[in-house]
Amino acid sequence: MKIYGDVYSGNCYKLKLICTLLAIEHEWIPVDILKGDTRSEKFLALNPNGQIPVCVTDRGDVLTESNAILYYLAQDSHYWPNDRLAQTRVLEWQFFEQYSHEPSIAVARFIKLYQGMPEDRKDEYQAKLKAGYRALDLMEKHLSNNSFLVDNNCSIADISLFAYTHVATEGGFELSDFPAIEAWIARIQALEGFISMAG
Amino acid sequence: MKIYGDVYSGNCYKLKLICTLLAIEHEWIPVDILKGDTRSEKFLALNPNGQIPVCVTDRGDVLTESNAILYYLAQDSHYWPNDRLAQTRVLEWQFFEQYSHEPSIAVARFIKLYQGMPEDRKDEYQAKLKAGYRALDLMEKHLSNNSFLVDNNCSIADISLFAYTHVATEGGFELSDFPAIEAWIARIQALEGFISMAG
Repeated sequence: MKIYGDVYSGNCYKLKLICTLLAIEHEWIPVDILKGDTRSEKFLALNPNGQIPVCVTDRGDVLTESNAILYYLAQDSHYWPNDRLAQTRVLEWQFFEQYSHEPSIAVARFIKLYQGMPEDRKDEYQAKLKAGYRALDLMEKHLSNNSFLVDNNCSIADISLFAYTHVATEGGFELSDFPAIEAWIARIQALEGFISMAG
Repeated sequence: MKIYGDVYSGNCYKLKLICTLLAIEHEWIPVDILKGDTRSEKFLALNPNGQIPVCVTDRGDVLTESNAILYYLAQDSHYWPNDRLAQTRVLEWQFFEQYSHEPSIAVARFIKLYQGMPEDRKDEYQAKLKAGYRALDLMEKHLSNNSFLVDNNCSIADISLFAYTHVATEGGFELSDFPAIEAWIARIQALEGFISMAG
């Protein structure tokens, strides 16, 4: 299996993390978004949407969308629950991540960390901060009564949300106001097979 | 089962459509976003994220996120495929919908149809048009060689993407340049049990 990605992108790191947690052998092929790698003709032939990560299975199937790939890789493991309701809860959190969390927290991090906060994106950054804190509030409320996002069992929902939440400080978010999130981050970091973003 | 929603919201209409296609009995409880219904204390107690649709099962489980609810409702039907790769493909399209399609096409429609194109959102609208056409291009390319999004079988991926695509013209998109999408729309409209947005 090959994974095309950049481990400092949370969406790609999700796959690195599930692979080490489940001891899934893979070849990691570094892709540099900032250098335009995802806009090359060769890459667009692989994923016409021009996004990383991309996973190519040993059979040659090309998989896209980080959360869908997590689903694929976690089948038959305890990171994907057995019953329909719990499975739906996992997906609820993953869709929350892609709609209400990543577009604010990951983008705020990109503007601050990678772009150095250009003048013409400052207003957008403030809006992203506000929306990001709203997403963190929802997580904090839930994690105050739960050790993991679904049924107190670590699932791919936690992997999805962990990716950008644990580096939210790089986007200017203050996590010390979210003790339940901080405790949850520590629980994930303590899992056997955990690997940090820096590897 | 109860569903809280507004059928003219594509995210809610997805559920109305799967319910009629699968003959799932339900009570529809109208919610008016424009009147602030989703920001009421009562509604936020149901869904702290303040979004519709919300589905409450007969057991009292509260489900959120339209695409996760589709997953829940379509289990054991042919709208959710059996094999892992096809299931992953369905989720790929659903995550594409929430990340690359809905935020541009649904928002462009909202700005044009519901807000009457206010001056201060015109630049944003143009950006949404551009991003929306990019999403439509990707769908057109795929549907040129496939009758439905996954394995030529109508699945919840098609329900998800149909919701806002078939009313994209209300957002100012010209669909006549996308013959494969238009043919796919017609195929879905011809399904037994199909219901239009207007009911």
